Amino acid sequence: MIKKILLTKTGYTFFIRDLSQAYHTKEGFIKKADLKKNNVVIKTNKGEEMFILEPTFVDQYKKIKRGPQVILPKDIGTIITETGINSQSVVLDAGGGSGSLSCFLAHLVKTVYCYEIRPDFVKIIEENKTQFDLKNLEIKNQDVIKKIDEKNLDLITLDLPEPWHVLPHVEKALKPGAFLVVYLPTITQVIQFVAEVKKTKKLFYLKTLENLQRHWVVDDKIVRPEIQMLGHTGFIIVARKVVK
Amino acid sequence: MIKKILLTKTGYTFFIRDLSQAYHTKEGFIKKADLKKNNVVIKTNKGEEMFILEPTFVDQYKKIKRGPQVILPKDIGTIITETGINSQSVVLDAGGGSGSLSCFLAHLVKTVYCYEIRPDFVKIIEENKTQFDLKNLEIKNQDVIKKIDEKNLDLITLDLPEPWHVLPHVEKALKPGAFLVVYLPTITQVIQFVAEVKKTKKLFYLKTLENLQRHWVVDDKIVRPEIQMLGHTGFIIVARKVVK
Amino acid sequence: MIKKILLTKTGYTFFIRDLSQAYHTKEGFIKKADLKKNNVVIKTNKGEEMFILEPTFVDQYKKIKRGPQVILPKDIGTIITETGINSQSVVLDAGGGSGSLSCFLAHLVKTVYCYEIRPDFVKIIEENKTQFDLKNLEIKNQDVIKKIDEKNLDLITLDLPEPWHVLPHVEKALKPGAFLVVYLPTITQVIQFVAEVKKTKKLFYLKTLENLQRHWVVDDKIVRPEIQMLGHTGFIIVARKVVK
Amino acid sequence: MIKKILLTKTGYTFFIRDLSQAYHTKEGFIKKADLKKNNVVIKTNKGEEMFILEPTFVDQYKKIKRGPQVILPKDIGTIITETGINSQSVVLDAGGGSGSLSCFLAHLVKTVYCYEIRPDFVKIIEENKTQFDLKNLEIKNQDVIKKIDEKNLDLITLDLPEPWHVLPHVEKALKPGAFLVVYLPTITQVIQFVAEVKKTKKLFYLKTLENLQRHWVVDDKIVRPEIQMLGHTGFIIVARKVVK
Repeated sequence: MIKKILLTKTGYTFFIRDLSQAYHTKEGFIKKADLKKNNVVIKTNKGEEMFILEPTFVDQYKKIKRGPQVILPKDIGTIITETGINSQSVVLDAGGGSGSLSCFLAHLVKTVYCYEIRPDFVKIIEENKTQFDLKNLEIKNQDVIKKIDEKNLDLITLDLPEPWHVLPHVEKALKPGAFLVVYLPTITQVIQFVAEVKKTKKLFYLKTLENLQRHWVVDDKIVRPEIQMLGHTGFIIVARKVVK
Repeated sequence: MIKKILLTKTGYTFFIRDLSQAYHTKEGFIKKADLKKNNVVIKTNKGEEMFILEPTFVDQYKKIKRGPQVILPKDIGTIITETGINSQSVVLDAGGGSGSLSCFLAHLVKTVYCYEIRPDFVKIIEENKTQFDLKNLEIKNQDVIKKIDEKNLDLITLDLPEPWHVLPHVEKALKPGAFLVVYLPTITQVIQFVAEVKKTKKLFYLKTLENLQRHWVVDDKIVRPEIQMLGHTGFIIVARKVVK
Repeated sequence: MIKKILLTKTGYTFFIRDLSQAYHTKEGFIKKADLKKNNVVIKTNKGEEMFILEPTFVDQYKKIKRGPQVILPKDIGTIITETGINSQSVVLDAGGGSGSLSCFLAHLVKTVYCYEIRPDFVKIIEENKTQFDLKNLEIKNQDVIKKIDEKNLDLITLDLPEPWHVLPHVEKALKPGAFLVVYLPTITQVIQFVAEVKKTKKLFYLKTLENLQRHWVVDDKIVRPEIQMLGHTGFIIVARKVVK
Repeated sequence: MIKKILLTKTGYTFFIRDLSQAYHTKEGFIKKADLKKNNVVIKTNKGEEMFILEPTFVDQYKKIKRGPQVILPKDIGTIITETGINSQSVVLDAGGGSGSLSCFLAHLVKTVYCYEIRPDFVKIIEENKTQFDLKNLEIKNQDVIKKIDEKNLDLITLDLPEPWHVLPHVEKALKPGAFLVVYLPTITQVIQFVAEVKKTKKLFYLKTLENLQRHWVVDDKIVRPEIQMLGHTGFIIVARKVVK
């Protein structure tokens, strides 16, 4: 677990897990005594100034243990704002991977059920659950393609290669009016998935979108978009249970 | 207040406020008796099939009373995911406008204080508050440039033409480690704002970004991005209180 | 044919085809005598100042007669820079439509053969050819899917719904090392086309791309991207004849 | 000078400058005898198949000697299509750098005058001129801020940090109706430049834009935008001489 973060004047962040000894950086080391401080400017032995902070959720989240593919905050934001989930919501997240989406959602909603078939990934999700102290996250080492135990869910999120196989369970598990959000890296998967949603009786396909986030350098006279940009993460497909 | 929504097979939504009489559409009318149903397929007198649903938060939100400029869900998503606010958070939103951001945030967090200087806008915000039944939204008809009453806030959002005037109050009102998120339509405002943040003692400028959301048509063989796209809404600037 | 253009101080352009009488605008009319002037500031009878210019190619091009779908300058630019065509090049453009791409290319290269199957479109292309006085544009009212008469072409451009049917002719008609550029509105067409190119013996698939052009308002203190943006025109696919 | 190119089945290109000996790659070597072939499939000693081609202009251009900042083909395309230059045009390109823009334009137009103040860059431009055999490219080792010798130019392109200093010369050197295109990396430069253009008597500011080019992977079932994307190169500003 991250105990403190150091923010340099250039905007770089150090994540400190061990406060029992001095913390070494390229710009010098921070004394053990200084690591106990909060929300002040401290100096390395080389005189470099840094801010020391207690980590919040988003700081911890930046260092969450991750699997190969992860849904980024820009796309999590869409999941939240398209579906209106809040602290009253009960959510199922399947294809949990490292659990990064499940953890973010558990921070926001009442309960998250995270389905993950691979035991090695379940172990990572459990570590992440512990790190964030998310008692409302229930991890299930079972195959969502076989069944969904829950009923009356406010949201189901799927991050799986072939999410169409889950549709019969989704139709039963969602509360009427509730949402299904699927995250897919290729447009070929999107085409197949949307076709399958349109064949169901209870689900209605709403939209497919992608988020391009552009970061800017704003540094006195140098004001321009950043040169490198993420050109693609995944497509987000939103469907809704319209028939009970 | 919206009592029911009708979703057509082509994806168009009708928002029904009055259930005491038949509802007329171009595709025919829905009988009063059918408007009482939920989560079924109903037919207009012309035989057109539609889904009838009880509105959820996001349905209501689509018809929120709006002022001239509004922060869109794609940008609200960034505010949420960059700051990690949740049901424990206390937020101040200034330059409330029609209160659309305040209402979305109040749906998610513990308390929202919404500052708005114009009495006509305050009236709209109050109507929106009533519509969403948001008891945790406190509307203040006062100028945030003059003062901020609250302390220990988890987030301050500013949607004002000259947010730099609020910085001295922001420095005092934010909890250490908490965030300031500013929304600005022009890059010239961004340049001035970031320069002013960099002059403060307690705030640290983190990033400037913009969100481009691209919607896709996925209709059998017709799969392509939508022709029209929002090329710009606003720049989002994130800063953080790093010194207590 | 456009004889003169008027450019207002706000950037709006009027295209004048008739110099034999005064020209009327919302900001007043321009006297017939003033329409003979060039490259000066003239005034309407209401005192509004405008610039009067002789039209160049790009001015004429803005008013070219167009069919339903047209390849925009942003995408024509890619065709030119990806293939290196110049005044030595011989090009075939098929699915001519209104001939707007053919006309632009004929302005740049040695010869353009424009294939178009529909006689009504051929008539439009002929009008455009006359307007631009493009003697090097040869219009052929024949089906490119049936045959290509020419050999040793430097570039073939296809703007057709099913360009894969033309591939056998393309393989023969292109000069070794020369390019095929295809413009397709949907990704489903792109998928099918690229699969077919990969089955040929002589053509090699190089790339698929799309151009997003973002225009900015730069008006004193108001500096921001334009609100409305073209989110999609078409995908551009580039292939090359690698085997003689 | 590049004598041959090898294109692998995965789309990678090798550029061969020396045909007097076998060419070695990771996938094995190509025999000297095979390097004389054209437009056939040849094999490395390890049996890997490759296409061998004579280089065209765009092949050579990919290996042009470059300075630190270079205007990419996506932006050169805009310069061509916004201004309508062709084989009749006379162009001045200042802030030549490595001459990459000058060389591309010289390939298209009648004459290019390339102004470059730094002798070391002039040397690179001369090498590039020789490589492309561009007799219509005249390189001038002089400061465009001091003077422009030419008159009646069809286009002036500026790739300089402070292009506003050149405006008085641009006003005189351009043909009436002709274009000035400026390429600037930061929006702060754009703001200053546009303000200065608006103060001139003879030039009219037309537009500012930027090109985002998105490349796609189209590989059987894997069809998606490329993960990495260039988020920014430069802003393109177009102005026109409207008063003689």
